[in-house]
Formats: sequence, structure tokens, C-alpha cells
Amino acid sequence: MVKDYIVPRTPPRTPPRALAAGERPPSRIRIEQPLPRIDCGRYPPKRCEGDFVEVSADVFRDGHDVVRAVVYWRGPGKRRWQEAPMQPIDAHLDGVRWAGGFAVEHVGRWEWTIEAWSDAFATWREELGRKLAFGQHSLPSELAEGVVLLRDAAGRARGEDRRVIGQALALLEDPHAPEAAKHDTALGQELLGALERHPDRSRSTVLERPLVLDVDRVRARFGAWYELFPRSWGGFDGIREQLPRFAELGFDVLYLTPIHPIGETARKGRDGALVAGAGDPGSPWAIGGKGGGHDAIDPQLGTVEEFEGLVATAQEHGVEIALDLAIHCSADHPWLRAHPEWFMQRPDGTLKYAENPPKKYQDIYNLDFDCADWRGLWEALRKLVLLWVARGVRIFRVDNPHTKPLAFWEWLIVDVRRRHPDVIFLSEAFTRRAVMRELAKLGFDQSYTYFTWKNSGAELTEYVSELAFGEEREYLRPNFFVNTPDILTAYLQHGGRPAFEARLVLAATISPAYGIYSGFEHCENVAPHEGSEEYLHSEKYELKQRRLDGPLLPLAERLNSIRRDNRALHELANITFLDTANDALIAYFKRTGDNAIITVVNIDFRSDQEGLVIISPGLGLPPGFDVVDLLDATGYAWRTGENYVRLEPGTRVAHVMHVQQP
Amino acid sequence: MVKDYIVPRTPPRTPPRALAAGERPPSRIRIEQPLPRIDCGRYPPKRCEGDFVEVSADVFRDGHDVVRAVVYWRGPGKRRWQEAPMQPIDAHLDGVRWAGGFAVEHVGRWEWTIEAWSDAFATWREELGRKLAFGQHSLPSELAEGVVLLRDAAGRARGEDRRVIGQALALLEDPHAPEAAKHDTALGQELLGALERHPDRSRSTVLERPLVLDVDRVRARFGAWYELFPRSWGGFDGIREQLPRFAELGFDVLYLTPIHPIGETARKGRDGALVAGAGDPGSPWAIGGKGGGHDAIDPQLGTVEEFEGLVATAQEHGVEIALDLAIHCSADHPWLRAHPEWFMQRPDGTLKYAENPPKKYQDIYNLDFDCADWRGLWEALRKLVLLWVARGVRIFRVDNPHTKPLAFWEWLIVDVRRRHPDVIFLSEAFTRRAVMRELAKLGFDQSYTYFTWKNSGAELTEYVSELAFGEEREYLRPNFFVNTPDILTAYLQHGGRPAFEARLVLAATISPAYGIYSGFEHCENVAPHEGSEEYLHSEKYELKQRRLDGPLLPLAERLNSIRRDNRALHELANITFLDTANDALIAYFKRTGDNAIITVVNIDFRSDQEGLVIISPGLGLPPGFDVVDLLDATGYAWRTGENYVRLEPGTRVAHVMHVQQP
Repeated sequence: MVKDYIVPRTPPRTPPRALAAGERPPSRIRIEQPLPRIDCGRYPPKRCEGDFVEVSADVFRDGHDVVRAVVYWRGPGKRRWQEAPMQPIDAHLDGVRWAGGFAVEHVGRWEWTIEAWSDAFATWREELGRKLAFGQHSLPSELAEGVVLLRDAAGRARGEDRRVIGQALALLEDPHAPEAAKHDTALGQELLGALERHPDRSRSTVLERPLVLDVDRVRARFGAWYELFPRSWGGFDGIREQLPRFAELGFDVLYLTPIHPIGETARKGRDGALVAGAGDPGSPWAIGGKGGGHDAIDPQLGTVEEFEGLVATAQEHGVEIALDLAIHCSADHPWLRAHPEWFMQRPDGTLKYAENPPKKYQDIYNLDFDCADWRGLWEALRKLVLLWVARGVRIFRVDNPHTKPLAFWEWLIVDVRRRHPDVIFLSEAFTRRAVMRELAKLGFDQSYTYFTWKNSGAELTEYVSELAFGEEREYLRPNFFVNTPDILTAYLQHGGRPAFEARLVLAATISPAYGIYSGFEHCENVAPHEGSEEYLHSEKYELKQRRLDGPLLPLAERLNSIRRDNRALHELANITFLDTANDALIAYFKRTGDNAIITVVNIDFRSDQEGLVIISPGLGLPPGFDVVDLLDATGYAWRTGENYVRLEPGTRVAHVMHVQQP
Repeated sequence: MVKDYIVPRTPPRTPPRALAAGERPPSRIRIEQPLPRIDCGRYPPKRCEGDFVEVSADVFRDGHDVVRAVVYWRGPGKRRWQEAPMQPIDAHLDGVRWAGGFAVEHVGRWEWTIEAWSDAFATWREELGRKLAFGQHSLPSELAEGVVLLRDAAGRARGEDRRVIGQALALLEDPHAPEAAKHDTALGQELLGALERHPDRSRSTVLERPLVLDVDRVRARFGAWYELFPRSWGGFDGIREQLPRFAELGFDVLYLTPIHPIGETARKGRDGALVAGAGDPGSPWAIGGKGGGHDAIDPQLGTVEEFEGLVATAQEHGVEIALDLAIHCSADHPWLRAHPEWFMQRPDGTLKYAENPPKKYQDIYNLDFDCADWRGLWEALRKLVLLWVARGVRIFRVDNPHTKPLAFWEWLIVDVRRRHPDVIFLSEAFTRRAVMRELAKLGFDQSYTYFTWKNSGAELTEYVSELAFGEEREYLRPNFFVNTPDILTAYLQHGGRPAFEARLVLAATISPAYGIYSGFEHCENVAPHEGSEEYLHSEKYELKQRRLDGPLLPLAERLNSIRRDNRALHELANITFLDTANDALIAYFKRTGDNAIITVVNIDFRSDQEGLVIISPGLGLPPGFDVVDLLDATGYAWRTGENYVRLEPGTRVAHVMHVQQP
């Protein structure tokens, strides 16, 4: 409904400033609780290119006067504002809630505000109508008031509207015209329309200050990620060779673990051993070595030119390269010599390596963001990000942002996005919920989540509902990684292939963005010991030979294809969980426009499970309808009500069903 | 728990301003969602003298450092701030919610804010403890760090704390002391306490700006009101004679309908007739006549001196006089001649009387708050209020505030309360919920409600729950009037005495403030016609002879006495509605400290009703307990679980039971 109004009907203008109590009395209208807004406007809500932004607010005044409201907006870098009318909605809220909206076509920071005013003519007309309805027919004083209102309006109007108003005015002022004709004219829709287009806004109320929105590329919300260690794929050349296949598999983003020179001092050996063996390559996160620091590339992977070539070739295949941004340094990082003042030094002169007792990271040193030369350090980090942006990178997966100052990230991300609004930052923070939320609020475009540890139906339902419908929905975009080099969950360790399949389907069909770390498709699931979430023979410390030949790749390819074809899988907040009469089966319905998908997953990797998926009448599906499982093209007849489902770990762990003509 | 901390432990100081990004890096701590706060701090939450204000906020930072937080506050007119520590609460919110508080002893506007900082020593100590726990015992570098922290602290500390720190420092610096002794000292509570009292707050975070609270007299929340037409009681002298009896009945506030001269032009006759009879006195709300306007007193009621005498005598009896503030004028009001520019004039020169088609108020004219001389008008109205304040009035019942500008009320009330913070404004607005809320937010201390129209158990439960637990609880204090000169509900018209009794008990035991308009105690319930909420022979237009001899007065007296004796009836948010297994019975439990009251009311005036009042275990009452009905001193044995109740319209419509030793 609101979309009908996106064409501005008056020339774009600057919204007036809020009226100070000067010569004129303060405006009588209040505008409150504008949405979308986060923390009183402190942080920008997030949207993607092409979204229609619905805004709303409580708009009201004393008395019974008719009120009008418009929304103003302008895109990044634009000087002129556009505007569109708002409409009252939600009569159950006393009719004070108004809504309107606009489309955001470009990435960057958008501004919007609301203006509201009293419509003197509509108020007068409404009162006149009531008097006539209650049998008062001689209303000369009222008509005299109307003349004054029309004269004012005629001065503001132009063109055809001015003519309409002038005509009505002539009739109202004509002493010989019958009063009934005057009433009819005053109550006419044509006159009202003409006047509404030229309102007297001189006493309007405007929000104290404009609100903001951050508009990202769609990739910030939707995408299939594949994480790999470049050295396991033959460096940049090896990856480049695989690009056509990655593209075919439907992966949108290849996320490379750090590509910089690796420290030799205190290098970790296999499975994190304190002493590295002769040929051990070290962890890519132990950044900085003879070849340079965060600005350099490990020569074994390739050159800067080869990296830039990889980025460009990937782009040709519709695949993006995401880089790891891990802010800490190995003992051999050039900054330790060039900028010892940037590191935390002990009173005895030793540097303090990273630790979180009893965990020790002897191969890395944290930077001291609060050091005396903090500006120098912060600028250097910004320069690094801009360097990689200049080399073609537009997605950064940020390592452990929750251990660096929140104010630093806000400064960095806002600044980088002002220059390059297409840059996407993914927050890899597994920590307290409040900190994860804050990182998203302050600017991270996408976030790792607790998904890996939500394995039961109840846990998934509760957590996904929070993400989809809670306060986070305005700013935290989840990326459901099924595993990472640090997270091999007990569920995967114990569940074998059915567990991997179930988790892959869940991630790919619940969250618009999801990812796998290579090895997942081989169902790699051996931990060094019970209770550990590490991988035995972790790729972090060993050179592996990886190829795209895992048995789960066909499922991933099918899911990625389904995701691209079905708009319902491009957003999160359209999810409705369905009863299944069996805790081992989780089911959910997603619908966007006329595209609807029903997914059912057996999350019990041990046993066949049967249940009844209940399609409630509230979903608005027909009494009977056809579904097609997009995983194997099997069709079923479903209905509003109970639908029998049986899923078997050995043969089929999930249905991903397209609803035909929902 | 929080109350343990209200004694400031460091000298009162001014909270620092939020750190600008100057020489030092921005603070690492975020303080978010501070409460209590209304609309992002736009309006002050309300409290009463003597309340303990609990404040809370999300306080967190990156990393794992130990955080500390304090609340600062200062009372009205105070330059110095006091402070008290806050404590982390609510582990389920990731442990980021902190709470603290302070007592507000005086009326007026209070300010408060929060400061938080990282505790470097506690962080260091916590890490040291973890290392020792995990078997690291040689930690010379760590101890060297501790020495630096202690040296800094010694510079800040004073007295005994300085001695404790100095002693620990000496030990840590002693090359011959055993390392274990150093660890023990570093981990000691005594040292931690000494350091906590002298923290390094130089890098703290403070709320961007202080938040405010409005503290009122307790009367703003709690009181029994009696509304009367002075002319029906023999004017001021007549009222004065009745004061001892009003006091005995337990009424706290006598609210007088307007006491000003009444217009003669277009005076309304009996039951609102357009033409008044010879002896008809006119509506007291048709303010202004030969004797003057809002600043004058109808000579038939008495003189200014007699009014001041009434106010003073009332005060001696513990009764307050509340005045009606109705901003509109009769045709004979002096302002019509002195300030015609303050009124809405039609183009034909006629004045526009008040109307809301089809309703017409020919006997009054509205003021034009937006007229050219709006400042003159607004100032004149403020002067009026201050005049009556000077004559001793401290409570104003404001007539129809929702038809005057919201900005006017905010300006008026904030200004008057700055001069006289003990003044109370009661909003008589029956209109859209949003406007009623706004009037309360912007400053009205107390509000009429929809109570009169909430007659079923479900309606009452829903509405009272909204008032008690919804957003309104921070700013809208209800006054449950059972009737008004304009509101005689169908429930009362049809229900006879049992209906009047039920409504009286409900109002007096649910809402800390309640009121009756005289005649209620006589069960006056005849409307001019079905569907009308007016009174037949309305006192608005006729001279009546009133006396304190209504049959319901003993019940009112008993209820007022119960209210005064039982703290549980002094607040609203302590209510819990109880299941009764019968929709015609409404029951609720209120508890404040060790005072608890269970009320059960038969709201069906036609029939005896029996039911089971269910005391759920969650209320924390013993398995068996004694209750005494305070209305008739009958005792019952009750229990957690089901309790049989029977209430009969003819004999007993309600229990108001005191729980013995809850």
C-alpha cells in the first residue's frame, strides 16, 4: 500500500528544522517513536540495495484537527531530499501510528526524517460535513471561514490546482450562489486533492534530527561462503584453476585464511605443538615474517599481482574473494621493530604474548590500542584495510573483533564505508551476546553466530526466532557457518554423514548467508580428544592437499542452486517454524511474495524419524496444494493440516520443498 | 541488595564529561539502555519523596577486563553530586546488566548518570589467579606488572588504604620475599578493597548526558479524593464546617469544581437547556462574569480571604483543597473585552464558541493558543496558576487538557514545578491513549483513566496490567474516579447499590489514588435517557443541597482507613491478579514488604457468585495462612491452592483481606 506513494508529489525540498520557540508558538504536533531506529538513533539500521524501507512513527496533536505527515529521504552524497506522504495505520493504537516509505537504490548511508502538520482546510471540511450531517444547513460563518482558507491556499497553489481552488473560491464568495452548492463544492474531493497538494506547512513539526540507514550490497545479507587455506590448494594459482568449479558449485564467496608471511619465532607445530617441526608451515594467523607484515603476501602463495589477478578472475566467475583481517603480530612482524610502542610491554621490557589463561598464544602478540601513539596505530590499521581494498578486496572476515576496542571498529568501519560503501565486514566474534550485538550495531555488516551450538529443534527455534524477530533483526545479519577451523562440534563428531547433511541443509535454508570450511564436504570429524572442538591434524598447523571432490559437494551444489532460485531463502524474517509432532524433526516455512519453501530436517542422525508437519490455516496456503522436493524432484500432495513425513539418516535427512502456487 | 550501597564511598564529585576523541583514545566501555528513562530521555520518569530509585544499564567492553560502575545523582538545586557503586545483575543477559540506586528525599527534578571504568588491578589479579590455578607458579613478569599497578594506586590512595597498598608494594618489590607470599598478597581481599576505593577513572565512560527524574509529593500517587460543587455545600463556609467530617471519612483531597463568577450570556439551564430559567445558576465551567474571570471568586461562594481560610483550615485537618483549572471563557469573561485577540474570531467578526459537532458549548469560548499574542496569553495563564498557588492551592485538576497545545502544558507545568515543586496537576483527558500518555509524559502528575468503562474482570485485568506493568508505569499515575459530573456509566445506572459498592472497592483497592464525585455515596444513578452518561438534574446546572449522609459513606470511610493502614495499597505495580474460576469474581493480591492484601469483588450486581481464589505457589505465601477481612473483621483460614469464596450482592460484595504474617 505504502509503495503507491513513493513518487514525490511536491518538488524535492529540504525538511525544515525543528521550530524553535521564536516568534511563532511551538508546533502542536508530536512525532514520536520513529522506526526503524536503533538505540535512539545512535546506530544505523541496515538495509540492502533495492529494499523498500518502511518507516513509521506516532504522529498526533491535541484536539481533533486533521493531521498530515510525509517522509523525507536522501541517498548518500545527495544534497536534495525527496518526500512521500505517510498514511495512518493500526487503528488499534488509537490511530496515531503513521507509515510511509521509500526505496534505497544505492549502497551507503541514507538519511530520512518525518514532517507533520495540521491540515486546516481538511479540518474545516470535516467539521462542516458533520454539521451538515447533523442537520445544520445555514452556515454562513463557516463558509466565510472557508473563504479565508481557500484564499491562503490559492496563493500557494500552481497550475490546475490553482484553477480548481480559484473556481471554488469564486463560488463561495458569490453572494447569489445557493448555500447548498457552496457546501457541495467545499466537500468535494477535487478541491480537497488540490488543497492537499499545496499545504500550509509553516507550522509543521519535524523530527529533531534526521535518522540514518546503512544500505549494503545484497551480498551482505545473502551468499554461500567457502573457507579455505590457500596453501592447501596450491596458492593463488591453484585456487584460480578451481574457480570455474567453485562457481559451478554455487559458492558466492571464497574466504581465504590469512595470506601474509608467517612468523618463524615460536612457530607452532602440528596440532598446536609449542615447537614446530622442520617443515611445519605454522599458523597463517601468526602474521608477519621476513617477507613482511599485514601488507605483504606469503611468497609461497603468490605475488601481489597474482593475488590481484585471482580477485579479478574470481569476479569474472561471479565469485568474490574475502580476506581475513586478524589484528595481531607474530614475533617476526616488521611492526615489532618499527613500532615497539604499539605493543604491550611488561615492566621488565618483555613483550606480552596473547593469552587467555590457561590458553597461551605464544606465536602472536596483541597490539596495544590504548598506547601513547594510538592514533598512529589506528591510522596504520586503516591504511592496511584501504591497501587491500585497493587490491580489489571488498569483503573482510574480521578475526576476534571482540578483543579490540569497540570504538576502534566503529571508527574504522564508518570511515572505510564512507570511502567504499561496497565493502563488507564479517564479525568473527564468539563471545557474550551484548558484545556480538554491539559489533553489529556499530557497523559490522554480517556476523558469525551461535548456530554451530544450536543443534536441537528447541534451541534452533528459539535462537533463530531471536535473530529473525528480536531487536537484532535491524542490525545483525547472521552468517551460519557449519564449521570453522576452530569449531568441530560434538554433534558433527558423533553424527557422521547424516549430521553433516542435516547441518548443511539447516544452514543453507535458514540463513540467507551461510558457509562451510573446507573439509566439511568430506565429513571430516575427528577431534584430538573427547571434549575438544579442534580438528585432529588441524589445517591451521599443517600443509594439506585439498581438492573439490568431497561426497557432500553435490548436496551443497543443489542447495546453492535452490537458494539462488528461491527468493524465500534470501531473507530471514520470513520464517515460520512448524509443529512436527516429533522433536527430532524440525520444519519451517518461508515465503517471499509468491515464492514459498517448506523445509523439514531430521536432526537425529541415529534413527529414522516420522512425524506430522502441521500447516496452520494462518499461513494462508490452500486446503490442498502440491509440493516438490527440490533436492530430488519428488512431488507430494500436501494440505493445510497434518502432513505425514518420514526422514531416514541413511537415505534422506531432509525435504526442501517448493510450494506450487502457494 | 542494592540498598546496601547507597552510602557514597568516595567524596562527592562531579561526573566527568563524556571523553571527546582528543589526546587519549576513546573509552573502551559502553553504557547502553539506561533505565529508568522515557523516550530516550526526552521526558522525566516520576517518583515520589522517599522512594528508592533503582537504576540500571548495560555496561560492557571488549575483551575480558574487569569493569566497575557507579551511579551519580544530585537533588534539585544541588551543585554537588553523590555516588554509589553499581552491581552486575541478571547473568542471563550475559552479565552485562548493572544496577544501583539512590533515595530521593525531596520533591523536584533530580539528575543522575552512570560512570564505568576498567579495573586494571582486578583484571591483573583475576588473570594471576587463573594462572596459579592452572599450575603456573613462576610468574616474575606478572609480578612486575603488579608492582606498576600498585605504584600508580599508591599515588591515588589515602590513609589506611595507602598503608595497605604500600605494604603490599614493599613485599612485591622485595627480591628476597618468596614468590608464593607475593601471590598470596596480590590475591588478598584487603588489597583489592583498598585499590577498589581508589580506582583510576581517567579512562572512564559516562552517559552522554545526565538523565532526569521528577520527584513528587506522595500525594501525587496516593490519595482519596472527593469532588464537590461548592455551591451545593453552602460555599466555603459550608465546606469548612464539614472539614472535620471529611477528615474523619479519610478523604485526603477535596476537589472543588470551578469557583469563579459564572457567565450570564448564553447561560445554560437545567440539564443543559439552551435557555436558563430565572434562578438557574449556570455551569461553574462557564467561567467569567461581572465579578471577574479566572482570578476572581463567585461572591456567592465567599471571598478570597475566606477561600484562603478554607485552604488553611483544610490543611489543619490533613485535607487538601484541589482547584479546577478550566481554560476557556464565558461570553462575560473580562478577557473577551480586554484581550479579544486571544480568541478565535471568524472572518465575519463573530467569536467562535466551543463545539465538537454535533455538541455545542454556546456558553464558552475557547482561547486561541496560536494567536499572534500567544506569548501574552500563555504568560497570563501561568500568572493565573501562580496566583492560586499564592492563595495556597497545591493541586490543580485540569479540565480537558487534550484540547490545548501539548507544548503549552509542558512549558507551564515545568515552569510552575520549578518554582513550586510541590504543585500537583491532574489531567482530566478522556481521549486517545497516545494523547493521554503524552500529557502524563510531559508533566501531569496524575491522570484520569478509562477505569469507569472497564467493568468486566477481563477488561479490568487487561487495563490495570497495562497501567501497572506497561510503559506507562514510569510516568502515568492513575486516579480511579468512580464517577464524575459527566460520567454516570451504564454499569452504575443498572446495578444499584451492589454496583456502587463493587466499584468503590475496586477503585480504592486497585489504584493508590481514587476519587468519588458527591452523590455517588447516595447511589445516584438516574440518567436523562438510556445511552446517556449524564445525570438527570445534573448538578452542573442546578443548585443542590448536599450533606454527608450517604449510605455508602461508612464503606468509603472503612476503605480509606484500610488504605492508610496498609502500604500494599499505596502502589500499583505490586498487583497480581488471581484466578477465581468464575468470571464474575475478580481477585488480586498486593504486597509491599510484609504487608499483603487479597481483594475479591463480585462484579455481578445481579447474583450471588461463588468461586475458588487460587493462590499460586509463586506468590510465596505459606501452605496455610490466616486472613482477616478488614471490612468486617471476619477471619478465614486460607492456603496456597484453592480457596472457596462466596459473595452476595445483597449482603457483601467484596472481601478486602489482610494476610496475617505473609
